[in-house]
Amino acid sequence: MKISARNTLKGKVEAVDTGMIMAKVKVKIEAPDVITAIITKEAAEDLDIKEGDAITVIVKSTEVIVGKD
Amino acid sequence: MKISARNTLKGKVEAVDTGMIMAKVKVKIEAPDVITAIITKEAAEDLDIKEGDAITVIVKSTEVIVGKD
Amino acid sequence: MKISARNTLKGKVEAVDTGMIMAKVKVKIEAPDVITAIITKEAAEDLDIKEGDAITVIVKSTEVIVGKD
Amino acid sequence: MKISARNTLKGKVEAVDTGMIMAKVKVKIEAPDVITAIITKEAAEDLDIKEGDAITVIVKSTEVIVGKD
Amino acid sequence: MKISARNTLKGKVEAVDTGMIMAKVKVKIEAPDVITAIITKEAAEDLDIKEGDAITVIVKSTEVIVGKD
Amino acid sequence: MKISARNTLKGKVEAVDTGMIMAKVKVKIEAPDVITAIITKEAAEDLDIKEGDAITVIVKSTEVIVGKD
Repeated sequence: MKISARNTLKGKVEAVDTGMIMAKVKVKIEAPDVITAIITKEAAEDLDIKEGDAITVIVKSTEVIVGKD
Repeated sequence: MKISARNTLKGKVEAVDTGMIMAKVKVKIEAPDVITAIITKEAAEDLDIKEGDAITVIVKSTEVIVGKD
Repeated sequence: MKISARNTLKGKVEAVDTGMIMAKVKVKIEAPDVITAIITKEAAEDLDIKEGDAITVIVKSTEVIVGKD
Repeated sequence: MKISARNTLKGKVEAVDTGMIMAKVKVKIEAPDVITAIITKEAAEDLDIKEGDAITVIVKSTEVIVGKD
Repeated sequence: MKISARNTLKGKVEAVDTGMIMAKVKVKIEAPDVITAIITKEAAEDLDIKEGDAITVIVKSTEVIVGKD
Repeated sequence: MKISARNTLKGKVEAVDTGMIMAKVKVKIEAPDVITAIITKEAAEDLDIKEGDAITVIVKSTEVIVGKD
């Protein structure tokens, strides 16, 4: 299945920590990749984001889905 | 400022595409890194996720925040 | 109150599983309904999504809000 | 690929509406199904959610991923 | 309807900016309020978050739902 | 670091409640502020959102990131 989510990174599980309802999975990404971010035009202008800029990508861990073949 | 979001990856902007309200930013991640995913214990067991597993990390692009120094 | 969230499905609680901080609620949806997804134009074109296509809707459980009258 | 997202519903695309950056996809869900919601224990207690309760499932459309075989 | 989302703030619309698919709504919050954040235990410990700390609450605008009576 | 997330509210931690994997942080917002919401044009029209409207801002607590200097 091909999915609409733009960011699918390959990695290896480093650790799994399990609670009563939730589990935390640490995944070591194996190769650099391209991440797509959709932000407001207002933010892009406010931060003056342009080609070549050094930037930090921030993702809250509850937003991350994992897949396994 | 230190933030609670566990995933902060360094990269370089490859492209910015601007619409009326939203903008799309492509960021080339520069080095492999560790991603933290919080999933349900049910999912972790269902996918039988354990140390060493090859895995895919999936993040929808609307969930990605960018930061710039 | 009318809300901007486009997807409000009626159902019945099948199970509640409570941890220390989080709880998991299983809801049996009672009738088929229409789901709205906002994705990138890039993804829509990449998946070639068009009227009549068979498709899978994917939602992470941490993104689901529940309401009760 | 099996994914950790608990909610994967089958449907048929009713309409696709494309903007400059984003696209809106309407999907007709074809059969009732079970939705998993992860909420705070506090919310579950505050709403007094228990088996058999009539409930509404709310999902913002930007949180929905679509997949196609 | 009572909802599980813990953060419901009252405000007044300052501006609405409409694109082809998405709209941006600026809401002036009218009174201070309490915000609930669910983060990883790891992040809470890493940031050493404790009662009385001055803190910044960060929410991406695509995560915000609006309601109107 | 300047970030693209439009909503960064200053507050004080009222309480921290820690589970095995997740923690709940209650933050008292100290001053009214402006919140930006990105919703579908369809929702904005359906709710007939216009300048001056009294409105409720809804954010699920799992979507909230916290930062600390």
